[in-house]
Amino acid sequence: MVNVDNLGVLFLSELVGTAMLVLLGCGVVANVALAKTKGYNGGFLMVTIGWGLAVFAGVIVSYASGAHINPAVTLGLVANGATEFGNAGLGLTVPVDPVSVSAYIGAQFIGAIIGAVIVWLAYKQHFDEEPQPASKLGVFSTGPGIRNYAWNLVTEIIGTFVLVFVVIGFGGGRQGDGGLAALGALPVALLVIGIGVSLGGPTGYAINPARDLGPRIAHAILPIHGKGGSDWSYSWVPVIGPVIGGLLAGWLAIPLLPIIT
Amino acid sequence: MVNVDNLGVLFLSELVGTAMLVLLGCGVVANVALAKTKGYNGGFLMVTIGWGLAVFAGVIVSYASGAHINPAVTLGLVANGATEFGNAGLGLTVPVDPVSVSAYIGAQFIGAIIGAVIVWLAYKQHFDEEPQPASKLGVFSTGPGIRNYAWNLVTEIIGTFVLVFVVIGFGGGRQGDGGLAALGALPVALLVIGIGVSLGGPTGYAINPARDLGPRIAHAILPIHGKGGSDWSYSWVPVIGPVIGGLLAGWLAIPLLPIIT
Amino acid sequence: MVNVDNLGVLFLSELVGTAMLVLLGCGVVANVALAKTKGYNGGFLMVTIGWGLAVFAGVIVSYASGAHINPAVTLGLVANGATEFGNAGLGLTVPVDPVSVSAYIGAQFIGAIIGAVIVWLAYKQHFDEEPQPASKLGVFSTGPGIRNYAWNLVTEIIGTFVLVFVVIGFGGGRQGDGGLAALGALPVALLVIGIGVSLGGPTGYAINPARDLGPRIAHAILPIHGKGGSDWSYSWVPVIGPVIGGLLAGWLAIPLLPIIT
Amino acid sequence: MVNVDNLGVLFLSELVGTAMLVLLGCGVVANVALAKTKGYNGGFLMVTIGWGLAVFAGVIVSYASGAHINPAVTLGLVANGATEFGNAGLGLTVPVDPVSVSAYIGAQFIGAIIGAVIVWLAYKQHFDEEPQPASKLGVFSTGPGIRNYAWNLVTEIIGTFVLVFVVIGFGGGRQGDGGLAALGALPVALLVIGIGVSLGGPTGYAINPARDLGPRIAHAILPIHGKGGSDWSYSWVPVIGPVIGGLLAGWLAIPLLPIIT
Repeated sequence: MVNVDNLGVLFLSELVGTAMLVLLGCGVVANVALAKTKGYNGGFLMVTIGWGLAVFAGVIVSYASGAHINPAVTLGLVANGATEFGNAGLGLTVPVDPVSVSAYIGAQFIGAIIGAVIVWLAYKQHFDEEPQPASKLGVFSTGPGIRNYAWNLVTEIIGTFVLVFVVIGFGGGRQGDGGLAALGALPVALLVIGIGVSLGGPTGYAINPARDLGPRIAHAILPIHGKGGSDWSYSWVPVIGPVIGGLLAGWLAIPLLPIIT
Repeated sequence: MVNVDNLGVLFLSELVGTAMLVLLGCGVVANVALAKTKGYNGGFLMVTIGWGLAVFAGVIVSYASGAHINPAVTLGLVANGATEFGNAGLGLTVPVDPVSVSAYIGAQFIGAIIGAVIVWLAYKQHFDEEPQPASKLGVFSTGPGIRNYAWNLVTEIIGTFVLVFVVIGFGGGRQGDGGLAALGALPVALLVIGIGVSLGGPTGYAINPARDLGPRIAHAILPIHGKGGSDWSYSWVPVIGPVIGGLLAGWLAIPLLPIIT
Repeated sequence: MVNVDNLGVLFLSELVGTAMLVLLGCGVVANVALAKTKGYNGGFLMVTIGWGLAVFAGVIVSYASGAHINPAVTLGLVANGATEFGNAGLGLTVPVDPVSVSAYIGAQFIGAIIGAVIVWLAYKQHFDEEPQPASKLGVFSTGPGIRNYAWNLVTEIIGTFVLVFVVIGFGGGRQGDGGLAALGALPVALLVIGIGVSLGGPTGYAINPARDLGPRIAHAILPIHGKGGSDWSYSWVPVIGPVIGGLLAGWLAIPLLPIIT
Repeated sequence: MVNVDNLGVLFLSELVGTAMLVLLGCGVVANVALAKTKGYNGGFLMVTIGWGLAVFAGVIVSYASGAHINPAVTLGLVANGATEFGNAGLGLTVPVDPVSVSAYIGAQFIGAIIGAVIVWLAYKQHFDEEPQPASKLGVFSTGPGIRNYAWNLVTEIIGTFVLVFVVIGFGGGRQGDGGLAALGALPVALLVIGIGVSLGGPTGYAINPARDLGPRIAHAILPIHGKGGSDWSYSWVPVIGPVIGGLLAGWLAIPLLPIIT
């Protein structure tokens, strides 16, 4: 039976954490991509460091729920055999079942949308003065360097596999209820920087369905000056790819990563 | 009743910490902005790393007072319900009241002015040979990419909110007397780098009234060769914005970040 | 007598760790070197950070075997007097003998080949569209800035000496069964970034025979569009150099690094 | 009475640590400054990261002596009131007296010369092909952006003051026998990166007499192809400045940094 009180707290925690992740993550892209910012054309390394530290901050404020802040992590932990989500130390746990999984993922998407809206507010004038619609969309969602749905999917699967597989490795082969928070925020941040610089080249490494689809929804809804389309034809790739990669990682970690108890 | 002896030690500690923060923080801008330096045109990532490590060093030397080194942190902790400031482990605490809050904030401003003066000494010749007055002022204080007081204020509020909210998150939902020092200097440094790369684009992220107004006062007073005006018309934005952001973060952390006891 | 069950687990662990190392390490070179990626021309610092974080991830998932993930480390620890490999905490150790050393090194080479194949898949389209064969080979294997086998060998010896000597220094003068995993992944990652930026200039710092020869074999075998030769005439330098450097470090650490017990 | 056995071990430890520091530190400058390297023109941020990680590696291998690896640190700790040098945990300490101070400083200079020679070997061909004598000297020793002995001295004093003052701050106001090793290598590395990006602009931040004069002696002695003069007229600035800065920091830390016992 789901503890409804706990689930509410965990829902809020995932929402806050994912909003923080997207605020800082999409924020660094805005800084690099939009006209007249201090960090204009700051380079890909700065983008990857920004996303890594966005994960860092998101994990910190999402300790109550274990800081999944990514549906691919949630599903990967399910595939890995997790039976509880949350923070056991705080007495805040819920059993893994369709209700709790849906609550986590729902909170992540809502948080991602909220984070993207705040990025737009923080960079409002720079959106107004930026002439390129593609640069504006790029702040919100990823797009591939060379468009080919099948190969783009492969890249997103590999990148997300690395994320979830190494996360389970941090946990000694099995992540229980801890999520990213149990690992400490810094190792996950470094891992995400590593994935970004190394596997982010072809698709811009969504590796998180909420991080990509949530802001894309925000882009579609917000009255952004001079915006173009939201590229819905590509939008399924950074959702399906990370889900496949996360599930594969959760399953393959069972035989490949001996459990430390 | 205020312990006057303790308050003197804490005053000195905040002063030394904020001076160190501003010395290294404004120093990296001097290195990037002034003529004939080794780091000239070193890029925004280097600036953000410099400010992050400036916080790192400032927190280290300000352990006695808990290392607020930022009025927005001091006020945010008050809004969050802090009842003591200082370092309980050292037996150096004072109750939170108008005297101690004023002492902390006063020390931060004085320290910031001193730090800015030392930056000027360290880069004296480069100030002398730099032809652009705007580059000289930029070493001391922030200025917006696109000037619009209302939106610039929004950006500073958001950036400072993230700073104080995540700082309280580090502390498990409630910062008591510990301030930044209780968190360790490295996480705060990483957070400040993250805020810089992600939210520093529009205004150059003051996110600290002392860091901005203190050096601006130094700029106005010092006999800097070929300096221009100190841009007083903008000077209130990086003071008021951080104060609002810090207070909001302190208040919103109460419902949004469950307390770890 | 070798514990065959343990050896199988350790073999798999070294294989997985080295595959992860090469996937992220060669991945960052692909991102910087191949046409139309997000990180194209991202600079040498990004490459070194990518390789450092590749070590970080590789060490994390290779905890069961102690995470050598480099024949030069394995041989250096032998020269330093190691008597067991593996993870004592997990009860997974094997005595150091020709069988276990061969198993470790064999796993490292197989893992490196697998990692290189996955890089090719992740960047498949960018390999197809990249016009320069040299850029494609550069993703897989190192090549010198100025070709001179004797001096290139000297540089690889020095770089690998630093790697293995400092690794033994982390361990307080003597690494037993722990390998890199016992040190924590972050210090080793930082060390590898340091070696890269400081000693990677002349040869691109293989400092690991498996990291260089494994991907070179993959390059030779894979049906890469428009590839050139695999530069076999140079291939022995980044194998022999690291072996000499690792052995020297293991031996010289005995007199130079006092043992902490 | 000096324990001669211990002093020999500590001498060797300081020598090895400073050699490692200079090998990686001068190495990154070689990579950025010399023709045909992989990191040519890699930027000042890469240089500062390289020096920071050079300190990291140097501290790691110099744990036996407490890792001063810098005469300004040794003298600053004396000024701060240190009574023992070395590693108490290993039972390797010596009293602070003229003999032990001389041994530490002597080892640091000899180590720095050795490190510089190895850099020359690692980059031998690139020294041969580099046309600019100034670039070659720059690998070994610092030189100012704008030459003015008095102001250059001020900058070196300030930079070294920050180094030693914050180091003492790490130690809670008083460094006893621990030196840098007691603080952990990572915080010191981050501090040195911070000083580099922030205060390295005018003079290239020697902040260490051995790091500057040792390699300058190596430059004068080594048969470097096409080298120019060793700029002896400037050589005293990065020796005297750091000594003054270190002593000032040691003294001022006593009133400014309350002692944690």
